Amino acid sequence: MHLAEIFGANVRRVRLERGMTLESLATEADLAYSYLGGIERGQRNPSLHVVERIAHVLESDPAALFCRTQTPEK
Amino acid sequence: MHLAEIFGANVRRVRLERGMTLESLATEADLAYSYLGGIERGQRNPSLHVVERIAHVLESDPAALFCRTQTPEK
Repeated sequence: MHLAEIFGANVRRVRLERGMTLESLATEADLAYSYLGGIERGQRNPSLHVVERIAHVLESDPAALFCRTQTPEK
Repeated sequence: MHLAEIFGANVRRVRLERGMTLESLATEADLAYSYLGGIERGQRNPSLHVVERIAHVLESDPAALFCRTQTPEK
Protein backbone atom coordinates (compact mmCIF):
# COMPACT_ATOMS: atom_id res chain seq x y z
CA MET A 1 0.00 0.00 0.00
CA HIS A 2 1.25 3.45 -0.87
CA LEU A 3 1.38 6.16 1.76
CA ALA A 4 -1.55 8.05 0.21
CA GLU A 5 -3.67 4.89 0.44
CA ILE A 6 -2.71 4.28 4.08
CA PHE A 7 -3.50 7.90 4.88
CA GLY A 8 -6.84 7.79 3.06
CA ALA A 9 -7.96 4.58 4.74
CA ASN A 10 -7.07 6.00 8.16
CA VAL A 11 -8.88 9.27 7.46
CA ARG A 12 -12.02 7.36 6.51
CA ARG A 13 -11.77 5.10 9.58
CA VAL A 14 -11.24 7.97 12.05
CA ARG A 15 -13.94 10.09 10.38
CA LEU A 16 -16.46 7.26 10.80
CA GLU A 17 -15.33 6.73 14.41
CA ARG A 18 -16.09 10.41 14.98
CA GLY A 19 -19.51 9.97 13.37
CA MET A 20 -18.72 12.59 10.74
CA THR A 21 -19.95 12.60 7.17
CA LEU A 22 -17.58 13.17 4.26
CA GLU A 23 -19.46 16.40 3.66
CA SER A 24 -18.96 17.75 7.17
CA LEU A 25 -15.25 16.88 7.20
CA ALA A 26 -14.81 18.50 3.78
CA THR A 27 -16.57 21.66 4.93
CA GLU A 28 -14.67 21.93 8.22
CA ALA A 29 -11.30 21.26 6.55
CA ASP A 30 -12.18 23.66 3.72
CA LEU A 31 -11.71 21.02 1.02
CA ALA A 32 -13.89 20.13 -1.95
CA TYR A 33 -16.12 17.13 -1.25
CA SER A 34 -14.88 15.26 -4.35
CA TYR A 35 -11.24 15.98 -3.51
CA LEU A 36 -11.66 14.60 0.02
CA GLY A 37 -13.41 11.52 -1.40
CA GLY A 38 -10.39 10.97 -3.65
CA ILE A 39 -8.05 11.37 -0.67
CA GLU A 40 -9.99 8.73 1.30
CA ARG A 41 -9.74 6.34 -1.68
CA GLY A 42 -5.98 6.97 -1.86
CA GLN A 43 -6.30 8.46 -5.34
CA ARG A 44 -5.00 11.92 -4.48
CA ASN A 45 -1.61 13.19 -3.43
CA PRO A 46 -2.33 15.72 -0.67
CA SER A 47 0.28 18.10 0.69
CA LEU A 48 1.26 18.31 4.36
CA HIS A 49 -0.84 21.45 4.77
CA VAL A 50 -3.92 19.49 3.69
CA VAL A 51 -2.93 16.56 5.94
CA GLU A 52 -2.62 18.98 8.85
CA ARG A 53 -6.06 20.51 8.24
CA ILE A 54 -7.72 17.09 8.09
CA ALA A 55 -5.91 15.88 11.23
CA HIS A 56 -6.93 19.06 13.07
CA VAL A 57 -10.63 18.61 12.26
CA LEU A 58 -10.47 14.91 13.18
CA GLU A 59 -8.64 15.83 16.42
CA SER A 60 -6.10 13.19 15.49
CA ASP A 61 -2.31 13.11 15.77
CA PRO A 62 -1.15 13.38 12.13
CA ALA A 63 1.42 10.61 12.74
CA ALA A 64 -1.40 8.21 13.67
CA LEU A 65 -2.94 8.74 10.23
CA PHE A 66 0.17 7.22 8.62
CA CYS A 67 0.30 4.04 10.70
CA ARG A 68 0.05 0.86 8.68
CA THR A 69 -1.01 -1.11 11.73
CA GLN A 70 -4.37 0.63 11.71
CA THR A 71 -5.30 -0.80 8.32
CA PRO A 72 -4.97 -4.40 7.21
CA GLU A 73 -2.22 -4.97 4.63
CA LYS A 74 -3.31 -6.37 1.29
CA MET B 1 5.27 23.65 15.26
CA HIS B 2 3.53 22.96 11.99
CA LEU B 3 3.53 19.50 10.49
CA ALA B 4 5.92 20.52 7.70
CA GLU B 5 8.39 21.75 10.34
CA ILE B 6 8.12 18.55 12.39
CA PHE B 7 8.62 16.52 9.22
CA GLY B 8 11.60 18.59 8.11
CA ALA B 9 13.35 18.40 11.48
CA ASN B 10 12.87 14.62 11.57
CA VAL B 11 14.17 14.22 8.00
CA ARG B 12 17.31 16.16 8.91
CA ARG B 13 17.81 14.19 12.13
CA VAL B 14 17.38 10.77 10.48
CA ARG B 15 19.52 11.79 7.49
CA LEU B 16 22.38 12.76 9.82
CA GLU B 17 21.92 9.53 11.81
CA ARG B 18 22.36 7.67 8.50
CA GLY B 19 25.48 9.71 7.76
CA MET B 20 23.97 11.03 4.53
CA THR B 21 24.60 14.44 3.03
CA LEU B 22 21.74 16.63 1.85
CA GLU B 23 23.12 16.15 -1.65
CA SER B 24 23.07 12.35 -1.53
CA LEU B 25 19.53 12.24 -0.11
CA ALA B 26 18.36 14.71 -2.76
CA THR B 27 19.92 12.64 -5.53
CA GLU B 28 18.57 9.33 -4.28
CA ALA B 29 15.06 10.73 -3.71
CA ASP B 30 15.20 12.50 -7.09
CA LEU B 31 14.59 15.94 -5.56
CA ALA B 32 16.33 19.24 -6.18
CA TYR B 33 18.97 20.02 -3.54
CA SER B 34 17.45 23.42 -2.76
CA TYR B 35 13.93 21.97 -2.52
CA LEU B 36 15.08 19.31 -0.04
CA GLY B 37 16.90 21.98 1.98
CA GLY B 38 13.63 23.92 2.17
CA ILE B 39 11.79 20.78 3.28
CA GLU B 40 14.30 20.22 6.10
CA ARG B 41 13.83 23.81 7.24
CA GLY B 42 10.05 23.35 7.21
CA GLN B 43 9.63 26.00 4.54
CA ARG B 44 8.11 23.73 1.89
CA ASN B 45 4.82 21.91 1.67
CA PRO B 46 5.70 18.49 0.23
CA SER B 47 3.10 16.04 -1.03
CA LEU B 48 2.73 12.50 0.27
CA HIS B 49 4.50 11.15 -2.81
CA VAL B 50 7.57 13.22 -1.91
CA VAL B 51 7.29 12.17 1.76
CA GLU B 52 7.19 8.54 0.63
CA ARG B 53 10.30 8.89 -1.54
CA ILE B 54 12.27 10.52 1.26
CA ALA B 55 11.15 7.90 3.82
CA HIS B 56 12.09 5.12 1.40
CA VAL B 57 15.65 6.43 0.90
CA LEU B 58 16.04 6.98 4.66
CA GLU B 59 14.69 3.45 5.30
CA SER B 60 12.32 5.03 7.79
CA ASP B 61 8.69 4.39 8.58
CA PRO B 62 6.91 7.49 7.22
CA ALA B 63 4.80 7.72 10.39
CA ALA B 64 7.98 8.10 12.47
CA LEU B 65 8.87 11.22 10.48
CA PHE B 66 5.72 12.93 11.80
CA CYS B 67 6.29 12.23 15.49
CA ARG B 68 6.56 15.32 17.65
CA THR B 69 8.35 13.41 20.38
CA GLN B 70 11.45 13.14 18.22
CA THR B 71 12.00 16.89 18.16
CA PRO B 72 11.88 19.26 21.13
CA GLU B 73 8.88 21.59 21.10
CA LYS B 74 9.62 25.28 20.93
